[in-house]
Amino acid sequence: MESSKRVLISECELFIGKEVVLKGWVKKIRQLGKVGFLLLRDRTGLLQCVLEQEQNQVKIETESVVQVTGILVKTDKTANGVELQVSEILVLAEADLLPFEINKKKLNVGLDHLLNHRVLSLRHEQINAIFTIQSMFVKGFTDFLMQEGFTRIFTPKIVSQGAEGGANVFTFNYFDKSAYLAQSPQFYKQMMVGAGFERVFEIAPVYRAEEHNSSRHLNEYISLDVEIGFIENVEEVMEMEERVLQYVFQYVKEHCQKQLDELQVDIPVWNEIPKMTLAEAQAILKEIYQKDSPEGDLNTEGEKCIGNYVKDKYGSDFVFITNYPRATRPMYTMPNKENPELTDSFDLLYKGSEITSGGQRIHRKGELIASFQEKGLNPNEFKAYIDSFAYAIPPHGGFGIGLERIMMKFLNLGNIREASAFPRDCDRLIP
Amino acid sequence: MESSKRVLISECELFIGKEVVLKGWVKKIRQLGKVGFLLLRDRTGLLQCVLEQEQNQVKIETESVVQVTGILVKTDKTANGVELQVSEILVLAEADLLPFEINKKKLNVGLDHLLNHRVLSLRHEQINAIFTIQSMFVKGFTDFLMQEGFTRIFTPKIVSQGAEGGANVFTFNYFDKSAYLAQSPQFYKQMMVGAGFERVFEIAPVYRAEEHNSSRHLNEYISLDVEIGFIENVEEVMEMEERVLQYVFQYVKEHCQKQLDELQVDIPVWNEIPKMTLAEAQAILKEIYQKDSPEGDLNTEGEKCIGNYVKDKYGSDFVFITNYPRATRPMYTMPNKENPELTDSFDLLYKGSEITSGGQRIHRKGELIASFQEKGLNPNEFKAYIDSFAYAIPPHGGFGIGLERIMMKFLNLGNIREASAFPRDCDRLIP
Repeated sequence: MESSKRVLISECELFIGKEVVLKGWVKKIRQLGKVGFLLLRDRTGLLQCVLEQEQNQVKIETESVVQVTGILVKTDKTANGVELQVSEILVLAEADLLPFEINKKKLNVGLDHLLNHRVLSLRHEQINAIFTIQSMFVKGFTDFLMQEGFTRIFTPKIVSQGAEGGANVFTFNYFDKSAYLAQSPQFYKQMMVGAGFERVFEIAPVYRAEEHNSSRHLNEYISLDVEIGFIENVEEVMEMEERVLQYVFQYVKEHCQKQLDELQVDIPVWNEIPKMTLAEAQAILKEIYQKDSPEGDLNTEGEKCIGNYVKDKYGSDFVFITNYPRATRPMYTMPNKENPELTDSFDLLYKGSEITSGGQRIHRKGELIASFQEKGLNPNEFKAYIDSFAYAIPPHGGFGIGLERIMMKFLNLGNIREASAFPRDCDRLIP
Repeated sequence: MESSKRVLISECELFIGKEVVLKGWVKKIRQLGKVGFLLLRDRTGLLQCVLEQEQNQVKIETESVVQVTGILVKTDKTANGVELQVSEILVLAEADLLPFEINKKKLNVGLDHLLNHRVLSLRHEQINAIFTIQSMFVKGFTDFLMQEGFTRIFTPKIVSQGAEGGANVFTFNYFDKSAYLAQSPQFYKQMMVGAGFERVFEIAPVYRAEEHNSSRHLNEYISLDVEIGFIENVEEVMEMEERVLQYVFQYVKEHCQKQLDELQVDIPVWNEIPKMTLAEAQAILKEIYQKDSPEGDLNTEGEKCIGNYVKDKYGSDFVFITNYPRATRPMYTMPNKENPELTDSFDLLYKGSEITSGGQRIHRKGELIASFQEKGLNPNEFKAYIDSFAYAIPPHGGFGIGLERIMMKFLNLGNIREASAFPRDCDRLIP
């Protein structure tokens, strides 16, 4: 039976009474007395395999890869009502001694150890579920935006001009030039709006050379970036983000109920995300929580309190914080018409943690140059970006969502590293 | 009418007799005598707008962004049978003097000049079409694979161990360590197969520090990577690639007929991609074309001749070249069972140019270590990768498609830079 077509565990109920070939990993094996039990795991689920006679003599280590042939029979002893009476078992790849037991419901293993042995730890149902959900989350994001007329773009991560923040970049020699890794696709997504695509999105890594390790920062992460041309105002940008998220969470629920159950998580449901200005949020922090905020921003503690506040007051996991001052927003941010000290910008908090920055951008070249100069930046260092506004770019705005950050909050993970298959922090480059 | 809901040009036929607001770029404007004509372009198409009286006095530069209000009327003078009688026109963003005329059917502008002014050149219908098609191509790729049970993965581009080729890498300081930019997600996609996902794909940039400029290489490009667990043989990998491509091209045809027409391109159609071993291909080159090949490979000229050969003989744009020798394939490639000097590997040529490398991989740790050693490589330098095979990884194989390369061949572009919005080569880091 070596080359018969493999049946997936999720399909087994359709083959009761039939001889089938299954392939997967040995999650557990008990070979006691006359009968042995092998719990087989493939990407679709678990199946009990019954070993008798010589099949019960085969020596197999847990987590080895096997091919089992046998007849599927009905049983009332397993959850899916079926088990395999094994007639042949082949070991396709043997596992060595494992660094920790992976077949427990709850792993009692430190995060570093899990990350060091990532291929093993990712096999645990609760860890595996994170990345299955992540994959569907990104699929939902893609599907929604393309239905809405967005074009998926690919922009360079090797760049030379105009680091947004100026610091926190990884630099390297690019042939005879100096280059760095892009902190965001900000300039390029704006340029692609202006290039006639109007509505664009990108799903790609971004890089921040931040020297501190924290439980909510990575040095390389995936940014879900959206930019929308021909907007009337920044509210349209927030509305689009709200619609994207509604769709994506619903999509995950439809495709990953098993994984959500595994993680004991449900999707957030809301009617309309509440909005408050930064000034209002800071006043709430002062009055209700006796907390001072940094000039023109919220700190981690403040985000957490505001998260609790909107949860109590509006039952919402989300809140838009709007109208950040010009002093704390990037030079391309559109000033507010009524109060030009403020901007048409926003952050989105989810469960008390920032997952998005967004806003309307300046789209006229003269205003853009003036804004760079007001920030003390030399427009010549951003020439390629600024020059593109000479070809006329429509009013536009957008946002970026940190994929690992939103997954961490959604799935109630304690550390953002849990939301990255192979996280990169100041210390970790391996595996 | 400043804030009325925008109607797209593609929707205009539904609004005949109605007053609408349109927004877009001024592709052409002729203001002569009593009546003027403005050709408006948005992301969905072109519309003729008729200017009379004071609307015909407004001074507007070509490629400016405008908002026009007016009544849609039937006409037999335009292709879509409708034009706009303008009652109001607002300039939302003004274009400066342009570096070249963009509104011609055929641009007579050098590639460097086009790339230097990318936001402008991308507005040309034929250039724009490339990236609309690219976006749909990637969407089709994603949809097909997820229907087939693949998980989309995200793996790090900042890596430290085991450059596949050893050379041609961009290196940089990562805090107190030395790191480099990933040449491919090869090791990581294999690890994700072994981590229980079985079938994975990634769409992400890869980096090659190759010092020569050519018309078919980029230093940063998008790799469409696929890896499949529990295969029986390398033929399954080729079959999967063939099915992916069939689906993707069909998907592009369904969603981008207008763009394909613009570029005067049709999708390739085939029943089964012909296969020949490398030895057969080299013999054909020797006998029919009197051409020598490099040891264990084809050169550019050879690929071109074999492309012509299969086109003439089988009517096929594609051909799989199989069974490359171990000497010219990477250390993780599965040796052929019958002839262990050869490997279970393949390249896919499309119109005489390599677009894919693929193969079955070694999945047993002992064999993998031996293969590294035979290649003169130190397994300790690949420890994290090799160690993951201790947890048992199923038989697997996969392939990678260079996105810009396949788009270049598909759309008959003369230079791979035309298939990248913002290409990176040895000289170009801007825009």
